[in-house]
Amino acid sequence: MRCNVVAIGTELLLGQINDTNSSWLGEQLAAAGIESHLQLKVGDNLVRMEDAIAVALVDADAVIICGGLGPTHDDLTREAIASIMGTELVHDESVAGVIREMFARRGRVMSDNNLRQALVPAGAAVIAQTRGTAPGLVCPVGEKVIYAVPGVPHEMKDMFERAILPDLLARSGERAVIKSRVLRTWGESESRLNERLDDIIDELDRIGNPTLAFLASGWEGIKVRLTVKAPDSASASRTLDAWDRRVRAEIGDIVFGTDDDTMESVVLALLEQRSWTFGVAESVTGGLVGGRLTNVAGSSRVFRGGVISYASDVKFGVLGVTPGPVVSEGAAAEMAAGARRVLGCDVALALTGVAGPDEQDGRPAGTLCVAAAFPDGSTVTTTAMLPGVRDQMRQMSVITALDFLRKQLLGSHAAR
Amino acid sequence: MRCNVVAIGTELLLGQINDTNSSWLGEQLAAAGIESHLQLKVGDNLVRMEDAIAVALVDADAVIICGGLGPTHDDLTREAIASIMGTELVHDESVAGVIREMFARRGRVMSDNNLRQALVPAGAAVIAQTRGTAPGLVCPVGEKVIYAVPGVPHEMKDMFERAILPDLLARSGERAVIKSRVLRTWGESESRLNERLDDIIDELDRIGNPTLAFLASGWEGIKVRLTVKAPDSASASRTLDAWDRRVRAEIGDIVFGTDDDTMESVVLALLEQRSWTFGVAESVTGGLVGGRLTNVAGSSRVFRGGVISYASDVKFGVLGVTPGPVVSEGAAAEMAAGARRVLGCDVALALTGVAGPDEQDGRPAGTLCVAAAFPDGSTVTTTAMLPGVRDQMRQMSVITALDFLRKQLLGSHAAR
Repeated sequence: MRCNVVAIGTELLLGQINDTNSSWLGEQLAAAGIESHLQLKVGDNLVRMEDAIAVALVDADAVIICGGLGPTHDDLTREAIASIMGTELVHDESVAGVIREMFARRGRVMSDNNLRQALVPAGAAVIAQTRGTAPGLVCPVGEKVIYAVPGVPHEMKDMFERAILPDLLARSGERAVIKSRVLRTWGESESRLNERLDDIIDELDRIGNPTLAFLASGWEGIKVRLTVKAPDSASASRTLDAWDRRVRAEIGDIVFGTDDDTMESVVLALLEQRSWTFGVAESVTGGLVGGRLTNVAGSSRVFRGGVISYASDVKFGVLGVTPGPVVSEGAAAEMAAGARRVLGCDVALALTGVAGPDEQDGRPAGTLCVAAAFPDGSTVTTTAMLPGVRDQMRQMSVITALDFLRKQLLGSHAAR
Repeated sequence: MRCNVVAIGTELLLGQINDTNSSWLGEQLAAAGIESHLQLKVGDNLVRMEDAIAVALVDADAVIICGGLGPTHDDLTREAIASIMGTELVHDESVAGVIREMFARRGRVMSDNNLRQALVPAGAAVIAQTRGTAPGLVCPVGEKVIYAVPGVPHEMKDMFERAILPDLLARSGERAVIKSRVLRTWGESESRLNERLDDIIDELDRIGNPTLAFLASGWEGIKVRLTVKAPDSASASRTLDAWDRRVRAEIGDIVFGTDDDTMESVVLALLEQRSWTFGVAESVTGGLVGGRLTNVAGSSRVFRGGVISYASDVKFGVLGVTPGPVVSEGAAAEMAAGARRVLGCDVALALTGVAGPDEQDGRPAGTLCVAAAFPDGSTVTTTAMLPGVRDQMRQMSVITALDFLRKQLLGSHAAR
């Protein structure tokens, strides 16, 4: 089974919007074992759209078209598909009814233009709209099929998962459910992960299902994705559970979460299990740790606040750090203890380091000193050498420090 | 002149990497008045690469190929181009010499594979490599031309600016220099900007040079880009200066910077002009303001630090806010005054608000209260209603608050 992708929109060619839809679709198709050999971007021009769709269809069983389904005269995907199907556009009254209802519900007046979205190539089926006003289309072309979905990412993703992927799998003769699980890791390079999972990768290569892929995610670490095809959802989950256990047996020490977990959500959850409140003292990161923690909904149950002690005077005066060099584990420990005291929190995490490009206190750019202070008065510290300068070093510092705290919360400071 | 783009790499189709190169090229080409009608992504497969390049060339004068110039046997761009040119690959000893030198300088051993990068289609010219080991290629195909550049963005951009754009302009018969200037704006919608610049846009539409484009940049505001074609660099700059003045005469109140300026770099520069030190008190943003300020190199000359007073107790206990509701201009003012005192800085900016999804203190999600406190003891406050929830609202809060301070620093608190 092979499915190519065409993204429609002059704004994509002009670089005003980056086409992320086709990357997302490519990832989903690959996870489902469907090949995608060609992905195109073309502007809002009927002839060029027809040409591009035809090219995409030559060597594929299916094409997904994203965009060009809006209500204006620039939106020509319906016309292009009808022309390729050699058919006419017809008014679909049930689609029109849904659009009228959406406008009525929002108390807005519908212009006649919006009825363009109720035009459907004769012979095509409709993918019901649930969020926007444009429906999706399933358009047979001989033995092949063209799907059309809106360019708005969340509408596109909804229609892909709800209608297109099941249809593609049905057409490929597979009566299978596809499920993925992502294990989030931090702390190893991709090549080292590869080595540690060598035996499992060999075995999976031999049996072919599930598949295992590494997705490098920059300063968010490396994701290990298991994808399984199974006859039903329950057996898919059983297979994922079994391989999840085997993968964790090898690299469990660096797996910090699953699927939508982030390092900050995991750390907040561990603290909440202990009913511990939390605070930060940030120097090199200047507020990035607090900024990320507070982006987790519900973080206010755990996170009390922080002190951004960027200038040395603020470390000395507000946090009570002993005057002297400030890029050291000792200074970090005093920052963490000071943050606990000033903020009145149970646990505090402190970061001090050198973002570069220049060295500081005789420590090279990339140096990060971290300390965590706990309710029993104890403090643990570590030093890491991080790559990159400025933004990269600072972002890596955030996840490195949170991972250090995570390990403490699972280790000597674990919930009993 | 028309130039299409082909991005090479199976990892692009699998969604492991997002193709940002073709968007960037599309933007640059459009700014130079060169059309781009089709942009393709294709995997590392010789036949499919040849097909894709041929399709891209049909309706264009030029094609830029990104990627596939590495040293491994997966890197097939050289072979695909030679096949389309109907020619052979030949060893280029001067390219090989540069590669050998690069390895020698880094003290590494060069494998024979790396000499694949010294293969050049007979009849092609080389774009000298300066950063990576792969050179770029300029490959004539009849009256048309194929350019090949590495997929690494900074190498691609360097070769485009240095060699490809000048060559494209020469081929189009234009002996022109193209220059752009971006005016950064904050505080108006695109449609309102359009209205305010109506006369200028009409006039530019009529004369055609320079061009004016709006680039919506989400929570970074809207960029107004002027692009001029001129016979030489000096006259390009003169024309840009003249139109820059005319645009600012209409919308100068919302222009906060030029080109690479950011809201945070502009605010830090204004403070530094006054020799004022700076601090923040952040509630709703949880550290995002500090995080962005400290990403500006040299920010330590101005920025002392901050208090992340996320929990109300921290506002009361650390910053001395009067106990009571904390989403109000009064609370913001006390936070700013408290931050000046605690951090020992000249100027402090405070933010308190409701990121949502739920309301707080009877204030709806989207409410942002901002205060700025100055060395003369005065405090100014404002309230804004921002769209979006959580991340979007928080990011908008950062730039909204900094813009409020910027206007104070240019107005009643301006340098004398």
